[in-house]
Amino acid sequence: MGLREGKMIRFNNDYNKPAHSEVLKAINDISDVSYPGYGLDELCEKAKAEIKKYINKPEAEVHFLVGGTQTNFIVIASALRNYQSVISADSGHISVHETGAIENTGHKVETATGKDGKLTASQVREVAENYKISGVKEHITEPKMVYISFPTEFGTIYSKKELEAISAVCKEYGLYFFADGARLSYGLAAEGNDVTMEDLANLTDVFYCGGTKCGAMFGEAVVITNKELMTGFRSYMKQNGALLAKGWLLGAQFNALFENGLYFKIAESAVKYAMKIKKAFKDKGIKAYIESPTNQQFVILTQTQMDKLSAKYAFEYEGRYDETSHIVRFCTSWANTEEEVNELVGDIGRI
Amino acid sequence: MGLREGKMIRFNNDYNKPAHSEVLKAINDISDVSYPGYGLDELCEKAKAEIKKYINKPEAEVHFLVGGTQTNFIVIASALRNYQSVISADSGHISVHETGAIENTGHKVETATGKDGKLTASQVREVAENYKISGVKEHITEPKMVYISFPTEFGTIYSKKELEAISAVCKEYGLYFFADGARLSYGLAAEGNDVTMEDLANLTDVFYCGGTKCGAMFGEAVVITNKELMTGFRSYMKQNGALLAKGWLLGAQFNALFENGLYFKIAESAVKYAMKIKKAFKDKGIKAYIESPTNQQFVILTQTQMDKLSAKYAFEYEGRYDETSHIVRFCTSWANTEEEVNELVGDIGRI
Amino acid sequence: MGLREGKMIRFNNDYNKPAHSEVLKAINDISDVSYPGYGLDELCEKAKAEIKKYINKPEAEVHFLVGGTQTNFIVIASALRNYQSVISADSGHISVHETGAIENTGHKVETATGKDGKLTASQVREVAENYKISGVKEHITEPKMVYISFPTEFGTIYSKKELEAISAVCKEYGLYFFADGARLSYGLAAEGNDVTMEDLANLTDVFYCGGTKCGAMFGEAVVITNKELMTGFRSYMKQNGALLAKGWLLGAQFNALFENGLYFKIAESAVKYAMKIKKAFKDKGIKAYIESPTNQQFVILTQTQMDKLSAKYAFEYEGRYDETSHIVRFCTSWANTEEEVNELVGDIGRI
Amino acid sequence: MGLREGKMIRFNNDYNKPAHSEVLKAINDISDVSYPGYGLDELCEKAKAEIKKYINKPEAEVHFLVGGTQTNFIVIASALRNYQSVISADSGHISVHETGAIENTGHKVETATGKDGKLTASQVREVAENYKISGVKEHITEPKMVYISFPTEFGTIYSKKELEAISAVCKEYGLYFFADGARLSYGLAAEGNDVTMEDLANLTDVFYCGGTKCGAMFGEAVVITNKELMTGFRSYMKQNGALLAKGWLLGAQFNALFENGLYFKIAESAVKYAMKIKKAFKDKGIKAYIESPTNQQFVILTQTQMDKLSAKYAFEYEGRYDETSHIVRFCTSWANTEEEVNELVGDIGRI
Repeated sequence: MGLREGKMIRFNNDYNKPAHSEVLKAINDISDVSYPGYGLDELCEKAKAEIKKYINKPEAEVHFLVGGTQTNFIVIASALRNYQSVISADSGHISVHETGAIENTGHKVETATGKDGKLTASQVREVAENYKISGVKEHITEPKMVYISFPTEFGTIYSKKELEAISAVCKEYGLYFFADGARLSYGLAAEGNDVTMEDLANLTDVFYCGGTKCGAMFGEAVVITNKELMTGFRSYMKQNGALLAKGWLLGAQFNALFENGLYFKIAESAVKYAMKIKKAFKDKGIKAYIESPTNQQFVILTQTQMDKLSAKYAFEYEGRYDETSHIVRFCTSWANTEEEVNELVGDIGRI
Repeated sequence: MGLREGKMIRFNNDYNKPAHSEVLKAINDISDVSYPGYGLDELCEKAKAEIKKYINKPEAEVHFLVGGTQTNFIVIASALRNYQSVISADSGHISVHETGAIENTGHKVETATGKDGKLTASQVREVAENYKISGVKEHITEPKMVYISFPTEFGTIYSKKELEAISAVCKEYGLYFFADGARLSYGLAAEGNDVTMEDLANLTDVFYCGGTKCGAMFGEAVVITNKELMTGFRSYMKQNGALLAKGWLLGAQFNALFENGLYFKIAESAVKYAMKIKKAFKDKGIKAYIESPTNQQFVILTQTQMDKLSAKYAFEYEGRYDETSHIVRFCTSWANTEEEVNELVGDIGRI
Repeated sequence: MGLREGKMIRFNNDYNKPAHSEVLKAINDISDVSYPGYGLDELCEKAKAEIKKYINKPEAEVHFLVGGTQTNFIVIASALRNYQSVISADSGHISVHETGAIENTGHKVETATGKDGKLTASQVREVAENYKISGVKEHITEPKMVYISFPTEFGTIYSKKELEAISAVCKEYGLYFFADGARLSYGLAAEGNDVTMEDLANLTDVFYCGGTKCGAMFGEAVVITNKELMTGFRSYMKQNGALLAKGWLLGAQFNALFENGLYFKIAESAVKYAMKIKKAFKDKGIKAYIESPTNQQFVILTQTQMDKLSAKYAFEYEGRYDETSHIVRFCTSWANTEEEVNELVGDIGRI
Repeated sequence: MGLREGKMIRFNNDYNKPAHSEVLKAINDISDVSYPGYGLDELCEKAKAEIKKYINKPEAEVHFLVGGTQTNFIVIASALRNYQSVISADSGHISVHETGAIENTGHKVETATGKDGKLTASQVREVAENYKISGVKEHITEPKMVYISFPTEFGTIYSKKELEAISAVCKEYGLYFFADGARLSYGLAAEGNDVTMEDLANLTDVFYCGGTKCGAMFGEAVVITNKELMTGFRSYMKQNGALLAKGWLLGAQFNALFENGLYFKIAESAVKYAMKIKKAFKDKGIKAYIESPTNQQFVILTQTQMDKLSAKYAFEYEGRYDETSHIVRFCTSWANTEEEVNELVGDIGRI
């Protein structure tokens, strides 16, 4: 299986290897067992129970979907009526990286300029208040949901206080609060993070624990706490191709991730490695494009620096920073080893 | 993993076990290898090449999607403009088992009464001709695509001659011809089948080789032969949540299925087993609801017969046949063993 | 203005002349008056009050839209979630004459074979019950609304008892009941009709009084009695291009139609004329295709009979009846004169 | 008809009176004539020919729709595939005043910060180029159409040179160019305008001549010059409720507007009046919010100034300018008289 790409050390993203060995083992363990289809099986039931242990909401509903874009548009479309919109930071995944998936379901994404990829409670208030006081409500879309991601596209995280503030505005104006947790485990493991899954369950109406980027082969676990958003969710899933026939494959994976806390442990090492890399760049005098406490590190490199590192490492090019430099992302994951990170750190010191 | 369901012998469907051991092995083999995302990797390239060996169309495009409903609505929505409809047998999967997924993308499913689940060329001609001669074209939907499945929902198959006839009508009226091959391998392995993948590629504009029901963990391989349907297909996939982040998982599976003909071999045994079961019912004097040459067998049982068999076997209840009897489906798959089948055959003889 | 078509006597439809003189006068009367836009004016307020006099539901909401297809898809789309469908007779306007407008908003039209264009309570019950008892609800669409038209596409009407029966099934299964009244006045004026606008308001959740075919230049007055269907209706209207900038043009027209009962009176003469024509065909031994008590009369003519009548009259060709005869529609309206009708009656006697 | 609003002198918008007397006369003149439905009549044919006299494109197609929002979403939805977006100034009508109508049809509106409500060729180039060079095309929407309005929401107009520049970029990148002409006549009549209808026909792929705001009761005349955009347009119209049953009502109105150049003449006086009002504000030392050469004038008033003028005149409040002042719009139309304008000018001098 000698792939050319396989020779590189990959820091380009957090979804470049199949799955954590425990996850793969969970699937291999059931290779001879048969199950009923579409997520109505005991593995899914158990996985839901495992996840719910972390949120203290027995009445919450958990659903397993396949991927992030799919999860985002289904959560949003199932919550909103056609004239209602969702508020997002302008850098939000739903706004810029999903090929207009939200608009394809009929909804406007109302953007506010993010600060480090984050939306503020006062921005939400402004959009909601503008609608509330508008004299021409039927001529404009009604903001009805707030979308954030935790962590954000830039790897930044919200403090508990920030989430509480957004949640309070949402309640005041009758907006749903939705947190995209495609990289949730890295956010929870971040330096300085004071938010728990239980906080997210308390403060949002719906959020999800990403699997694809956090150790699973694929899969996202949506947690719905607001009863209004529960009705018909499985119908939306099926209608949009998100009800996996062999649903227990998702159950098995999320069991492996949650029953012994693997989901949290593997993110801790990834973040620790990211911090090492961050420090290495800093020590070298290389500026961060954005200060991130999670597994994604955005730094500003010269062409020469890029060329040197790209000979050995895969990382993501983000765009020009200025005439002479570029923004790139180094992204660690559950799959990186200490050796890989040490090698990179050493090489950063030498560029 | 002692699941209650696990104790039963399952003939309820062809997607109740994870994957064929070769498929699982293919995934395990690459557990330490990293790849670029979204299907732009060498495993996918190789799998595409393997599939194209069977169709003799070098210019065809192959795409890997996750599931059947997803594949159906994306193929249809990407091919049609909003006022255009798709013609299907009334028993077609898109018409009755996908929660209105096609309508959700804005398109009417125009149904004709199927005979054994099959559409005829003359039915297609009638719908197309009605539109052609209509004096109020802008008041009605334009039929622009024909949807069939091979095999059908009832396990029946089209002969090459029947497909040629439909294909000719499609060409005459400018309709796209789309064959849903969720269970393709079982159709190709059917008794009396004279259709090949190359025929399908020649006669349709787009079809797919189902993986989910034919040995894979999940996945459907769409083969597009009509250039008009190629543009933007990946954008439709992404927008609708069908561009798997770890696309190589699909590549690995389809490689395992196609590089040594596994896809065809495993269906042969499944069909052979189905024929044994079919014969057992016949020998017992139990009537088939529909004559099927593939892995799905629909038979008519009394309540007592159902009760006896359901104590040991999982099969699918389809509905009442008359006051005293019921329609049920026994479905074999790549996963069934000769022992399981022999046991069932014996028990059928004793009910 | 010597148009070729103008020379014919038109019985082809009920929307071939601009508007009843009283309606036109109402618009001319305000030619120098200015109003606020989008239906927020006193003329609309007054027209709503006039319509509500007939239904005894002070809390009902009335909205004025421009045309029938528009009204149908907005009422349906604003009431349903994406996985929900609407039940209709197979001959229903939404099913066959609106270019898939309902599907374009994402909803399946679930059809039952109409009898004389009508749906029965037991057909509705069957569809609703099938969903209720289904074990795979998320795989099928949820029937959530019943659509009928009063009168139907074939000019037939429902008795009060029939409407009560459908309404009772709707309440039992939690379905919305929607009556398309594009030709409402002709139905209310029908021979043997025992239904009033008040009955419709009591038995349905939403219905409309058609203007376009009943004396107005254009316009349909939607009456919503179910509070659940009120929220956001104007937003749906605006979003779908149905919120007329000069809304008072609709107010003026519906005032003219309802403040002195013109809406009902003009339909009476149209129906009287239709009955004369019906009798003339009967007397001549020409068979009705369907027995209609309203302004639409469907009869079966030979080619010779068609040719003779079409030299002088415009009527609508519907399709072949058998090898030697055809179905045609003669449709009277508020615009026909006694002279025109007498002339036609005489000519029918001579073909 | 003594309406309270009727007592005010209205400068609040250009659609507050029924229709120009010539337009109304055209409808009254045919009150006894019958026509075939859905725009397939001689009045529409003639009106299309009249409009085409101004554009020198015999092969162009003209369609008559009812309102502006409707026209915008149908033109855009019929031109784009689901993953394609439309570029607009952030102040564009489709972006802010149509309740998400474009998103409701599945398309993202990609906004650029307008300068005086206008988009520049270089902004278009930037969006198009970003897509062209993107390495992740299937993850982002494809910009495929440019939307401008002539004049803009702020009453400003594009010079011929500016339109040529945008048109050139569109051709270079394969984008459709669409000009919303809801207020077209006021733009053509603007001081300093050097653009003709023929220019618009040459430089865009589709544009429309607004009727609703320019003398008609209602109606917008879409002119399609690009053959790619012609197919199926009437089907889109019908499906979206924009195919008026009594289409000749639109034909009659556009004939009245175009056969003797009324469309252009009535806008001239409206613009002349607007210039008088503009000068009056200027003379009084009241600042324009934006410099507009058309019938819409945006000025900055104190609360006292607003109160004084609003006692006698209707005008539109736009929002706060700063702590002590507000932005308001005075809008003239074909309906205003010299007396009304002189009275306003006098009163402005006295506030």
